[in-house]
Amino acid sequence: MNLILLQPDEVDSAGLCCLNGSRAKHVREVLRAEPGKPLRVGLLNGPLGAGVVDRIATEQVVLRCAFETAPPPRPRVDLLLAMPRPKVMKRLWAQLAAFGVGRMVLLRADKVERYYFDSHVIDPDFYTKLLLEGLQQARCTHLPEVLIRPRFKPFVEDELDALFPNHFKLLADPSGTKRMSDFFPDAASSQRILLAIGPEGGWTPYELEQLAAHDFNLFGIGERILRSDTATIGLLSVLADRMAE
Amino acid sequence: MNLILLQPDEVDSAGLCCLNGSRAKHVREVLRAEPGKPLRVGLLNGPLGAGVVDRIATEQVVLRCAFETAPPPRPRVDLLLAMPRPKVMKRLWAQLAAFGVGRMVLLRADKVERYYFDSHVIDPDFYTKLLLEGLQQARCTHLPEVLIRPRFKPFVEDELDALFPNHFKLLADPSGTKRMSDFFPDAASSQRILLAIGPEGGWTPYELEQLAAHDFNLFGIGERILRSDTATIGLLSVLADRMAE
Repeated sequence: MNLILLQPDEVDSAGLCCLNGSRAKHVREVLRAEPGKPLRVGLLNGPLGAGVVDRIATEQVVLRCAFETAPPPRPRVDLLLAMPRPKVMKRLWAQLAAFGVGRMVLLRADKVERYYFDSHVIDPDFYTKLLLEGLQQARCTHLPEVLIRPRFKPFVEDELDALFPNHFKLLADPSGTKRMSDFFPDAASSQRILLAIGPEGGWTPYELEQLAAHDFNLFGIGERILRSDTATIGLLSVLADRMAE
Repeated sequence: MNLILLQPDEVDSAGLCCLNGSRAKHVREVLRAEPGKPLRVGLLNGPLGAGVVDRIATEQVVLRCAFETAPPPRPRVDLLLAMPRPKVMKRLWAQLAAFGVGRMVLLRADKVERYYFDSHVIDPDFYTKLLLEGLQQARCTHLPEVLIRPRFKPFVEDELDALFPNHFKLLADPSGTKRMSDFFPDAASSQRILLAIGPEGGWTPYELEQLAAHDFNLFGIGERILRSDTATIGLLSVLADRMAE
């Protein structure tokens, strides 16, 4: 935990915040904090700041916090991800939050098994914990917004354009002949980017056609078949590198 | 399993190969193969090929294989990785094999706990299974060569230069002010690249100095503190993207 993440309503107007439970335990037992010790803090979806341990009791830790005036910029990348196997998705949550995505949609695709959507890994209580863990690891405060969409067609026809109105849209698929970099620096001039990543078996021709009709730009991802989590982290990394140019 | 990986001595001169155990079970139960069904096969550290199911018995599957003349090119990237937490390293093995690295060194650094090197996750019997799983996922045949080095100084002073003699050497650290891309296209003109990735807390000034004295080129990795596996997959992805230009 490289950051103590606080809910806005946990901090009073004087900047005092009383921690209980796992965060208090972490401060006491892992960080071995004593009164006066400075800690990095952040407000969920808000600014980063500095906290100082004010007092420590058996079950509680009180921090005195001062926050920066502005929150860090919201991640500029949104993600449209064909729902991975639950086991793989479980590993991915914290990494996505740590990496930084704005809004993410977990979508059914033809090569996604329907039962994946019955898994507890897409239960908000389950994944929010993992997202917060990723934010605290990476020292970020922006919680990704998560949408679960178990039907491809209605999502693409009725929701996609409204949710991602001015995005530069990139679509990863083994069938692509261009490279992601071919769309740069053009893509980087857009305010936001939407990256779509298919299932391990790839999108179907119908799905590719539907997405192309909604202005997605297709690029290839090489010959190796990567697990969804490896592919997702890899593509987000390349995208961040190209956007930083 | 997108590839059935075979040891060279499992295939006879006529191309027949008899599978038992987990691979036979996979062919029978997951791929539901019948005689005549074509399957992708590969020889460990050798060429890819095509196999046809010749016959199926209760415990055995016999494949008739034909291999390409040349093996796929060996991955051009080698990795010098400060040993991650065992739990993280466990997740990383299959992904590294799938991604493709030639030789990898797991090294002690100052901010690496000594007990990480007592973990079963660096036992060859344990990690070889995970590496093979990654190769079969990604349809690759090149098994990464693994070196475990629990002492930083003797490795850097006595082994590093001999193991990586003509490599372009890149060093990732939060303190870097250049970007990885600043070293391209120069780095790509080298036959091989060695990428060094530090522990979550970063390399120490002494370690950075030692590595710089061995021709490593320092670059930065942004402000987010990523878990070792996320950072490693991300950096390998960006490197592959830059090398492909």
